[in-house]
Amino acid sequence: MARITGLEVHDVRFPTSVDLDGSDAMNPDPDYSAAYVVLRADSGPDGYGFAFTIGRGNDIQAAAIRALEPLLAGRPVPEDASALAEFSAHLIGDSHLRWLGPEKGVVHMAIGAVVNAAWDLAARRADRPLWRFLAEMTPEQIAGLVDYRYLSDALTEQEALDILRAAEPGRAERAGHLMARGYPAYTTTPGWLGYSDAKLVRLAKQAVADGFDMIKLKVGANLDDDLRRMRLAREAVGDAVRIAVDANQRWDVDVAIEWMRALAPYDPYWIEEPTSPDDVLGHAAIAGALAPMRVATGEHVQNRVVFKQLLAARAISVLQLDAARVGGVNENVAILLLAAKFGVPVCPHAGGVGLCEVVRHLAMADYVAVSGDATGRWLEWVDHLHEHFPDPAVVRGGRYLAPVAPGFSARLHDETVARFRFPDGPEWR
Amino acid sequence: MARITGLEVHDVRFPTSVDLDGSDAMNPDPDYSAAYVVLRADSGPDGYGFAFTIGRGNDIQAAAIRALEPLLAGRPVPEDASALAEFSAHLIGDSHLRWLGPEKGVVHMAIGAVVNAAWDLAARRADRPLWRFLAEMTPEQIAGLVDYRYLSDALTEQEALDILRAAEPGRAERAGHLMARGYPAYTTTPGWLGYSDAKLVRLAKQAVADGFDMIKLKVGANLDDDLRRMRLAREAVGDAVRIAVDANQRWDVDVAIEWMRALAPYDPYWIEEPTSPDDVLGHAAIAGALAPMRVATGEHVQNRVVFKQLLAARAISVLQLDAARVGGVNENVAILLLAAKFGVPVCPHAGGVGLCEVVRHLAMADYVAVSGDATGRWLEWVDHLHEHFPDPAVVRGGRYLAPVAPGFSARLHDETVARFRFPDGPEWR
Repeated sequence: MARITGLEVHDVRFPTSVDLDGSDAMNPDPDYSAAYVVLRADSGPDGYGFAFTIGRGNDIQAAAIRALEPLLAGRPVPEDASALAEFSAHLIGDSHLRWLGPEKGVVHMAIGAVVNAAWDLAARRADRPLWRFLAEMTPEQIAGLVDYRYLSDALTEQEALDILRAAEPGRAERAGHLMARGYPAYTTTPGWLGYSDAKLVRLAKQAVADGFDMIKLKVGANLDDDLRRMRLAREAVGDAVRIAVDANQRWDVDVAIEWMRALAPYDPYWIEEPTSPDDVLGHAAIAGALAPMRVATGEHVQNRVVFKQLLAARAISVLQLDAARVGGVNENVAILLLAAKFGVPVCPHAGGVGLCEVVRHLAMADYVAVSGDATGRWLEWVDHLHEHFPDPAVVRGGRYLAPVAPGFSARLHDETVARFRFPDGPEWR
Repeated sequence: MARITGLEVHDVRFPTSVDLDGSDAMNPDPDYSAAYVVLRADSGPDGYGFAFTIGRGNDIQAAAIRALEPLLAGRPVPEDASALAEFSAHLIGDSHLRWLGPEKGVVHMAIGAVVNAAWDLAARRADRPLWRFLAEMTPEQIAGLVDYRYLSDALTEQEALDILRAAEPGRAERAGHLMARGYPAYTTTPGWLGYSDAKLVRLAKQAVADGFDMIKLKVGANLDDDLRRMRLAREAVGDAVRIAVDANQRWDVDVAIEWMRALAPYDPYWIEEPTSPDDVLGHAAIAGALAPMRVATGEHVQNRVVFKQLLAARAISVLQLDAARVGGVNENVAILLLAAKFGVPVCPHAGGVGLCEVVRHLAMADYVAVSGDATGRWLEWVDHLHEHFPDPAVVRGGRYLAPVAPGFSARLHDETVARFRFPDGPEWR
């Protein structure tokens, strides 16, 4: 039996703030960064994972991952569903570390990075891309991945099983469809707040030419600017292409409602992160006031307990899970099951560095084995930094291709890690 | 003008797990710990603060505090209300660090520790205990301490001012009352889950003899045990003494309701942390089902946004703020104002190491200048580890004495820091 020998952790940062790529109303100058972890095994492949941050503080995130090593060294490499459930529960359940959350923030993201690295390792050993490795588990195995604590008033294990069994008959057909056609994408590339009007229009037109039927614009810094940019974007893409907008938590509840009423004539497909991700009741108030406009959030939603409430309160009609925010694949399976229970489409958050690479696996596993559905779903696409991954996300004609290499695609090129290590890599020295 | 020269950070841990002090249904073996910070100034006194943890992970917390140093070194020492507001906003508003929360978990607690250290420093320079330093500010100054982002649907600055002005006339009288009589306390000392029945009964009787009119019991591991312990405690203290119970987040919503219906015949004064601190709607469901039994939470509530919702949803009837969980004094002033707005009594969380020392200042400032009220309010008292503080919390006849030494009382004895430093102090080597 293979055993975990330890963790290797790197603080890797990319100087993205130079070109204002990734700029929005709350994050004017992000340096996309990964607190990157290699889970070493005494035989066979290693596993790779990361937490995504935007620069300062990536050292804190890396320190949190490093602090998990004593809990892991010497343990067996988890290879199947029940071992992966036990691996996740072992970390989530540590009472001392739990005090630092519970199940939120830096420690939870650290656990998520390591759990994802364990899944990467398990999928590599199974010689499967993660989406397929997960989607080939039985309904009982998938349901058994989830920690139902704090969920049972909204989702029981029996309900999870019912959802998974209902999706079972179509699995092979949908996996075939994925291999043939990929998964729908939308692009955020045109809409960064720091881009000029000319760049916005050029990139919006390019997106349509490239086959996308949805783009996204950052909003929330200045209403007049937003009205102008929304008008320019609408003129550039025409009425048939969806334009989602994203305020990155900039507003209070009343401001969100007013602002979006002003933008409504341009038919925004959803308003994303109108306010604090912690504000379930605030999102419910916004959704109620703006209906039928869709409200979306999730990239900063800390855990399954908050998603449970957002769904139960009908506060969101689009759920944007993130592969590197919560406690890893296991908790994201819980979130996919909650979304399926409440009939809310999942449109995952991506971008940053590596998020497109990993989250596509979750969207595809959802399509094959959980919701069984891709209607009203798009996976975010941002065309940055993919060159640093040996198994990069690839979008063609507005659709993500299904990855075929074994694992979770989180591995960075060794040269990238060496070059962008903070503060001692050549890019930062 | 004095300037901040830097931070000194220590990982200090006490081996409390040896005697099961502090044991509860979720935390069987805490080692009470402080990620302790000294805010150095180039002239005059230094400031002291800490984040409280229960052992493993205190190194992560200390690393997070250390990472704030570049944001602070060279800045002026904040000495008055507006400088303290600006100091807090500078840290909370850092967009890179915000990504790691936002405003929750390890980074938020690190900011809280440093903000509290800045308040300690300012109060020392003003030669006032913090409760008096804060309560002597004008209503405008106190209202100006708060970040109203995400609060305006529940509390505006004008409403805060109205609350503070209404409390202004009685300030001197209440401060005099505090000096003469102190502030009501309850004690958790009898009720740790790891204690034998005999120890529980002995300590419960002792609490009443010492003048307490409320004690608290940990519950949630085993219902039969809880029924027996509750019966023994009720017999020991009689009907006139309140017994609060605390499940430390152990239950799902339905279990909480069932369990507390079983304990109801023993007249629990409140049920504390029945479920996840993130579950606003869950607390509301529990409060609705168990009414008129009081539901309490707060020691793990991550920030003002979640408190806002707990209050707006009438999910809690007792608010238990913690001095070292949120973003420091400024955010706790916001929480005190929210509680006053919704008419919910604040019964702060204390215990651990140092929490009694610091949080008494917030309860007393609330009594003098915010709610103006001590009705239905008790401050938690746990008689552990006070000997490590030069300005320890003191309880006499079931009441906290008002501290008189300048500052926030967060300073540890230098010998304590040297002896309990992890892993190199003599206590751990």
